[in-house]
Amino acid sequence: MQKSCNILPEMFEFKINKKDPHSRARTGVFVTPHGKIQTPIFMPVGTLGTVKSMTPDELIDLGSQIILANTYHLYLRPGHKLIKKMGGLHKWTCFKDPILTDSGGFQVFSLAQEKGYVDGKKRKGGIKITEDGVEFQSHLDGSKHFFTPEKAMQIQSDLGADIIMAFDECAPGDSTKSYAKEAMKRTHAWAKRCKKEHEKLQKKAKHRQALFPIVQGVTYKDLRIESAKFMAELDLPGIAIGGLSVGEKKEKMYETIETVEPHLPENKPRYLMGVGTPEDLLECVERGMDMFDCVLATRLARHGTYWDKNGRHCIKKEKFKADSSPLCKNCDCYACSKFSKSYIRHLIAENEILGIRLLTIHNINFLLNLMQKIREEIEKGSFKSFKRNFLKNYKHRQGEK
Amino acid sequence: MQKSCNILPEMFEFKINKKDPHSRARTGVFVTPHGKIQTPIFMPVGTLGTVKSMTPDELIDLGSQIILANTYHLYLRPGHKLIKKMGGLHKWTCFKDPILTDSGGFQVFSLAQEKGYVDGKKRKGGIKITEDGVEFQSHLDGSKHFFTPEKAMQIQSDLGADIIMAFDECAPGDSTKSYAKEAMKRTHAWAKRCKKEHEKLQKKAKHRQALFPIVQGVTYKDLRIESAKFMAELDLPGIAIGGLSVGEKKEKMYETIETVEPHLPENKPRYLMGVGTPEDLLECVERGMDMFDCVLATRLARHGTYWDKNGRHCIKKEKFKADSSPLCKNCDCYACSKFSKSYIRHLIAENEILGIRLLTIHNINFLLNLMQKIREEIEKGSFKSFKRNFLKNYKHRQGEK
Repeated sequence: MQKSCNILPEMFEFKINKKDPHSRARTGVFVTPHGKIQTPIFMPVGTLGTVKSMTPDELIDLGSQIILANTYHLYLRPGHKLIKKMGGLHKWTCFKDPILTDSGGFQVFSLAQEKGYVDGKKRKGGIKITEDGVEFQSHLDGSKHFFTPEKAMQIQSDLGADIIMAFDECAPGDSTKSYAKEAMKRTHAWAKRCKKEHEKLQKKAKHRQALFPIVQGVTYKDLRIESAKFMAELDLPGIAIGGLSVGEKKEKMYETIETVEPHLPENKPRYLMGVGTPEDLLECVERGMDMFDCVLATRLARHGTYWDKNGRHCIKKEKFKADSSPLCKNCDCYACSKFSKSYIRHLIAENEILGIRLLTIHNINFLLNLMQKIREEIEKGSFKSFKRNFLKNYKHRQGEK
Repeated sequence: MQKSCNILPEMFEFKINKKDPHSRARTGVFVTPHGKIQTPIFMPVGTLGTVKSMTPDELIDLGSQIILANTYHLYLRPGHKLIKKMGGLHKWTCFKDPILTDSGGFQVFSLAQEKGYVDGKKRKGGIKITEDGVEFQSHLDGSKHFFTPEKAMQIQSDLGADIIMAFDECAPGDSTKSYAKEAMKRTHAWAKRCKKEHEKLQKKAKHRQALFPIVQGVTYKDLRIESAKFMAELDLPGIAIGGLSVGEKKEKMYETIETVEPHLPENKPRYLMGVGTPEDLLECVERGMDMFDCVLATRLARHGTYWDKNGRHCIKKEKFKADSSPLCKNCDCYACSKFSKSYIRHLIAENEILGIRLLTIHNINFLLNLMQKIREEIEKGSFKSFKRNFLKNYKHRQGEK
């Protein structure tokens, strides 16, 4: 299936190391211009070219292998032209490891959603969809912008990430089938245009980028299968599933992944977009997914919440006021190796940056460690029992929503 | 003058290393339970038990020797009793170096000032001064509290810093002479009570603390001299000058220090409270001051401002948008050794924590380096010419106010 890599690995080659005999889980290595990525992998989100509160060095110390940045946000401010002028995202942010940029598609539509997304052709919130692209208003100043598949490729070429995403329409989870189909068809046409523009751009570019198309189709099984087949045929270095974890029930999400997965090329990394609770990571690795991203780890930290093996906890609770123990007893992160719950609680209560930093370090470390453990367990063939044990402790206390 | 220190240095001994032949500047070493302090020294401010945005390790990496924490703030939240229960400030914050706590006096009065401080006995803002102490309202929830000299000592004993401050009344810079005198007399009476209470507390305490009294008297020379003499006679391990840098003109501040200084014990560290612009540090070291603190370094950072040898600069300026150079070319701090002005500008414009962190590191490093340089120049006998050269570059560009 996968190409051999005896001497030098080929750029964007994906090599499967081990397949779990009891599930669809697998481990692998994806080669990018800025380094290899061990999968399954969680990618911390650095929306504006910074994983909130962290330095690039701190991320590397935690074992982060790749981060994500947002095309939509960076396009609006400071602008992709500036970042290109400064030598691209890697040089500008001093982040030496691989970077993935999304296409801006999700943000364009989620913004509209926030302002009153309506099923059908008419949408509120200043968003206008045509076959050519999407007109939207900046969430910063209301200024009007127009994204096409070609534009999304041009912006991402300027940003210079290792992995870039096709421009897609992310239809809401409660879309009617007819609308879901229409959005999917548009996403397919746009993916083809993205591929064409990307190939054109790569010819004159010095940096190599891998384009991933995005499977859509809401939770309609036949649409998802049709979309998976279509995107697989584009034969790009990886493939993503979008439009999940957008409000539908967990079971529906898992079911949709199970439906799609057999139709994805096996020898390419599968990126499940926007998913990143500990529970979901386990469930979706089991269902054959390789790459994940989610803002939850950093966002929860800013709101004073941290994970441990029992679930999530809010450090602001009164019971932690005089608690001299670390967030997690067996955690090796900087926060846990040094500070007490009592002190971190005080920092968060006072909105002190150090509190946010410590919880962010802990939460990202928690997910990266979980993924490392998952990889190890797959290699050992014991992933299923690891998952079962983890979720037994995890769910019986404070579950995720 | 100073005691010899051939074998083990005595706790709170102050040893003068070198006196500048051309000014009142001197270098020295002050011995505290958590380590020696090389003077002249700048103390970063950690109001709530954290130097905003920084870890204790980052501070130590920058060469910080001692930090300051605020009695008023920590008393209100999380409360000194909790901190005592958690083992004191050092253990709770994981800061291993010396800590100084102020008495809360300044905050009690500056709060009233913010709410409409009026010269005379009647004051707005819920503050009521008696000979016994001060009733004030919390800036957090308006709750009423009463601080006495004894209470200020008890709180600071619980916090457990190496250096603690006497409870004083900080009269406004525009006070009438009669009011300034009244406030000074009260401060003298309170200092005696502080000393008595402190001695009582130290008898049963395990940790050794040095109490510093605070010279007051607004900018009235005879009052300042009277206050300096009174405080000197208390024969405590150090002495502070309070009530300056509170709105009076720079020249008035320098003049007042020149008036006070000859009346301070030479063999004890002199702490000039709340002063910390590069310019003021130089001017006041020249006038015989040894210890300084100021929130400016961290506060300016949060507002996007940094120092270099030419003055202060706002990183948000348009001209820095595509500037690939570091904040300072010859600076060895993490921010300057890694990141461009362009990227830091973006981070600050987006209110990203990393931006605040980088400017904080740079600003604190700038002041700590300046103090180190000052110590070296005093040792070499070239302090005056160093100061002259520094201020020639510094003032002709963008001066401090």
